[in-house]
Amino acid sequence: MESPTKNNWRFRLHEVIYESNTSAGKAFDVGLLFAIFTSIIIVMLDSVERLHDRYGSLFSLIEWIFSFLFTIEYILRLISIKKPFKYVFSLLGIIDLIALIPSYLSIFFVGAQSLLVFRALRLLRVFRIFKLGHFLSEINFLTEALKGSVRKISIFLMTVLMLAVILGSIMYLVEQRENGFANIPESIYWAIVTITTVGYGDISPVTPMGKMLASIVMLIGYSIIAVPTGIITHDLALAARQKKELPESCPTCSREGHDADALFCKFCGSSLFV
Amino acid sequence: MESPTKNNWRFRLHEVIYESNTSAGKAFDVGLLFAIFTSIIIVMLDSVERLHDRYGSLFSLIEWIFSFLFTIEYILRLISIKKPFKYVFSLLGIIDLIALIPSYLSIFFVGAQSLLVFRALRLLRVFRIFKLGHFLSEINFLTEALKGSVRKISIFLMTVLMLAVILGSIMYLVEQRENGFANIPESIYWAIVTITTVGYGDISPVTPMGKMLASIVMLIGYSIIAVPTGIITHDLALAARQKKELPESCPTCSREGHDADALFCKFCGSSLFV
Amino acid sequence: MESPTKNNWRFRLHEVIYESNTSAGKAFDVGLLFAIFTSIIIVMLDSVERLHDRYGSLFSLIEWIFSFLFTIEYILRLISIKKPFKYVFSLLGIIDLIALIPSYLSIFFVGAQSLLVFRALRLLRVFRIFKLGHFLSEINFLTEALKGSVRKISIFLMTVLMLAVILGSIMYLVEQRENGFANIPESIYWAIVTITTVGYGDISPVTPMGKMLASIVMLIGYSIIAVPTGIITHDLALAARQKKELPESCPTCSREGHDADALFCKFCGSSLFV
Amino acid sequence: MESPTKNNWRFRLHEVIYESNTSAGKAFDVGLLFAIFTSIIIVMLDSVERLHDRYGSLFSLIEWIFSFLFTIEYILRLISIKKPFKYVFSLLGIIDLIALIPSYLSIFFVGAQSLLVFRALRLLRVFRIFKLGHFLSEINFLTEALKGSVRKISIFLMTVLMLAVILGSIMYLVEQRENGFANIPESIYWAIVTITTVGYGDISPVTPMGKMLASIVMLIGYSIIAVPTGIITHDLALAARQKKELPESCPTCSREGHDADALFCKFCGSSLFV
Repeated sequence: MESPTKNNWRFRLHEVIYESNTSAGKAFDVGLLFAIFTSIIIVMLDSVERLHDRYGSLFSLIEWIFSFLFTIEYILRLISIKKPFKYVFSLLGIIDLIALIPSYLSIFFVGAQSLLVFRALRLLRVFRIFKLGHFLSEINFLTEALKGSVRKISIFLMTVLMLAVILGSIMYLVEQRENGFANIPESIYWAIVTITTVGYGDISPVTPMGKMLASIVMLIGYSIIAVPTGIITHDLALAARQKKELPESCPTCSREGHDADALFCKFCGSSLFV
Repeated sequence: MESPTKNNWRFRLHEVIYESNTSAGKAFDVGLLFAIFTSIIIVMLDSVERLHDRYGSLFSLIEWIFSFLFTIEYILRLISIKKPFKYVFSLLGIIDLIALIPSYLSIFFVGAQSLLVFRALRLLRVFRIFKLGHFLSEINFLTEALKGSVRKISIFLMTVLMLAVILGSIMYLVEQRENGFANIPESIYWAIVTITTVGYGDISPVTPMGKMLASIVMLIGYSIIAVPTGIITHDLALAARQKKELPESCPTCSREGHDADALFCKFCGSSLFV
Repeated sequence: MESPTKNNWRFRLHEVIYESNTSAGKAFDVGLLFAIFTSIIIVMLDSVERLHDRYGSLFSLIEWIFSFLFTIEYILRLISIKKPFKYVFSLLGIIDLIALIPSYLSIFFVGAQSLLVFRALRLLRVFRIFKLGHFLSEINFLTEALKGSVRKISIFLMTVLMLAVILGSIMYLVEQRENGFANIPESIYWAIVTITTVGYGDISPVTPMGKMLASIVMLIGYSIIAVPTGIITHDLALAARQKKELPESCPTCSREGHDADALFCKFCGSSLFV
Repeated sequence: MESPTKNNWRFRLHEVIYESNTSAGKAFDVGLLFAIFTSIIIVMLDSVERLHDRYGSLFSLIEWIFSFLFTIEYILRLISIKKPFKYVFSLLGIIDLIALIPSYLSIFFVGAQSLLVFRALRLLRVFRIFKLGHFLSEINFLTEALKGSVRKISIFLMTVLMLAVILGSIMYLVEQRENGFANIPESIYWAIVTITTVGYGDISPVTPMGKMLASIVMLIGYSIIAVPTGIITHDLALAARQKKELPESCPTCSREGHDADALFCKFCGSSLFV
């Protein structure tokens, strides 16, 4: 039963396209990433007016070749997998489709071609390639640590947003409409620009009262930028400790998770050093 | 005694309005937050000149409906609690009142309507809703950790402010009045903008001497931004350790520091549950 | 011998001016800080052209009164201390003198009055007042921790400065003189503005090549801003651990500094739990 | 065999130029750094138009003297080392050559003189001098810790770059060409300026939709700036622990983790020095 499956062309196609443990699979992944990268560069260059005027038709041709190749790739992905719907509705599958559609839309609608920039989303595949190399353990470690931070960071971002709404609204009252704080949404935009310490300067306070309030907003932003850092540092340390503790295991009950300073197994009570 | 109290309408009203363990209480909280959110969006949209010219009267109507609803809510809060004054002078009570007043002020004073933005303060209620869900332990953890940092952060902010006064004053001497550093308060504003790395660019040094001094100010700001981060990271780690360590101590040797999943003391090997 | 010394007027003056354990000493410190603060506010307000035109002479009068008071304070400090030269050449002594001189200089030189801003330096005395209250242990903790970081932070700042020189010089070659990068010192100033993420925008790259290089500079700055934070967080944790370990002392040899998990004294080898 | 080698002039030259344990070696290193520093200051001053017009010929003379001295130094380095090619192709060797070439190029090509700024790269030698003093252990500690972070930081930077490409591309679609987002590369430049919180303000969103998207980009940047900090803090702590723990292990129970000042094992109570 095993050998016919392995010789099956669909199985082998699946191995090349979806897996990366075979040399053909690796070559496919690297080649795909290279194609994605090149097609994005072309879209970028085409957006530069001066280059578009000169090489516009060449760029267009290359883009169509890539669109054609990516369409074939998409079809191959569909036919080589057992459950095509699972792929179509997966994150990568949706991105692959979004990256394809603009080319065909541009036949019917003028300007749809500019949606080609969504091909940049396909760059996310780079992490799949990374996994090949020795970056794997580092990526796992980071994602593990950050997963624990997501909830805390989102509470933090919610607080920042609420602060921005409140401080932006007050600033709208303090500074007048003619000073750039045209309406509350603009003032909230200003508050976010300020709290995150980006500070474009497209809107900035003019009145003394406004400058005083802005100073307070800045100092708040300056202080609370420390919170996500603290959260992530803490969760990194936690993830590292858990990772480090794994190897030690009790010689009696072989359960793991003992502290570095433990003398006896915390699960069965027998000495860890027999 | 218990059942008549429970059937009492004031008790039930209190349960719905102030508590959130019953389904009616939860619905009330979610509905209230939705109303607050919508009313703020309306105030925001109304502040956009283009939309105000078009839908001004519609926005005004909706705002009055919300003002009416919030007034009823305020009255219900007053009559359903045993000690109304405690609510009136609590933080949330004051905010609720501040959010109500502008509507009624606008009958007598033109422009008072713009004070409606203070309704944004009511968004703070969102944290009460959060407490319903599984964010509770994370919020508790963060507030616990940050409470310990408040004093250290305020010393830090005081130092930054003093630095801003001193550096701003020196900058006022170095750069001339015509270079934007019009007076010492403006220069202090510039110093805060620079130390916090916001950098609007509305005021920036022009003379070589001023640029050199500004560079030093920036490097100072760049270095000390690390201090609040260090403080918060440290206090987060502390809070995490206390949370983890508090419950356990060995009943035999009374040594502490056991893991949450430990069954036996890691120091003397005796059971933790005698 | 002790009582006559205590009744000595110089001793009592010293106690009031330099110490803060007596109520008179505390009152003097608070009063002095209040005077410093008010005099700085006056200097600030006087720098605002509009206010200077109106109240200039009033401000001038108040400033002279403060100058007179601070002169008396300086003389009292000199005569109430045993070694006046030690005070004169101490940091606070030099600052006190610098804060005094401008007033008297302004008699002979027009404009010297603007040097009054150096009075802001006297605000550093605020930390002495802080020591009165319950901020003492927090200040000690922070200064202790930061003392250990000074050397590492200075290596870091030196590296940042060198990076700024190198990257600024390269940027001067890439962008042309007409794009704002007028000369190498200006380019270095730009590099510092960028690495520290301040980003005024008074000088910003114009050419595509310059923008690409600037992006790299920004990403470098974005990454290395983490280094001082890491250093300070680490040293805070170190300082905290040392502070925490102090109370535990060996019951046999009474030496301190044992780990939280130690069972036996690391100095004399006897059990810590007799 | 040893004494003739020591008296050999090439050996002694090598000791002076490459080593810094002899007083002559130290003097050479300090003198060299001083010469590099001065020559860079001259190049900087020469780039200031006003100074160039006045002292241009003097600067040119001094630059030629330094070029001559550095050429001699380079030749001496070549002849005093056993394997000259190893030096020529080392990092410092290449920098030394790059710093020399512009002077001689400027004879044939006008403008090549401005390449003299590459002399700034020679400042990297400052770290060799640092190693003389007591900064050695701190530098070793920092480089050791950062070495462990390089891989994680590069994954992080890659993610930031990809985010910048995706967000910049979307922003190019949202904002129109006339709003400063002229093409995709410019938009990516804007995204990097925003994510890193530099925020020049040379390009900033104009449309409400663009401002909303920009706010999201800022909040993303504000959150992920915490990641490198967390990484570096974590690796600093790791490096510190390893440094502290390596030397000791109890000769009786072979448990590790003793303090640097411990005399007896804290686990079994036996002496650490048998």
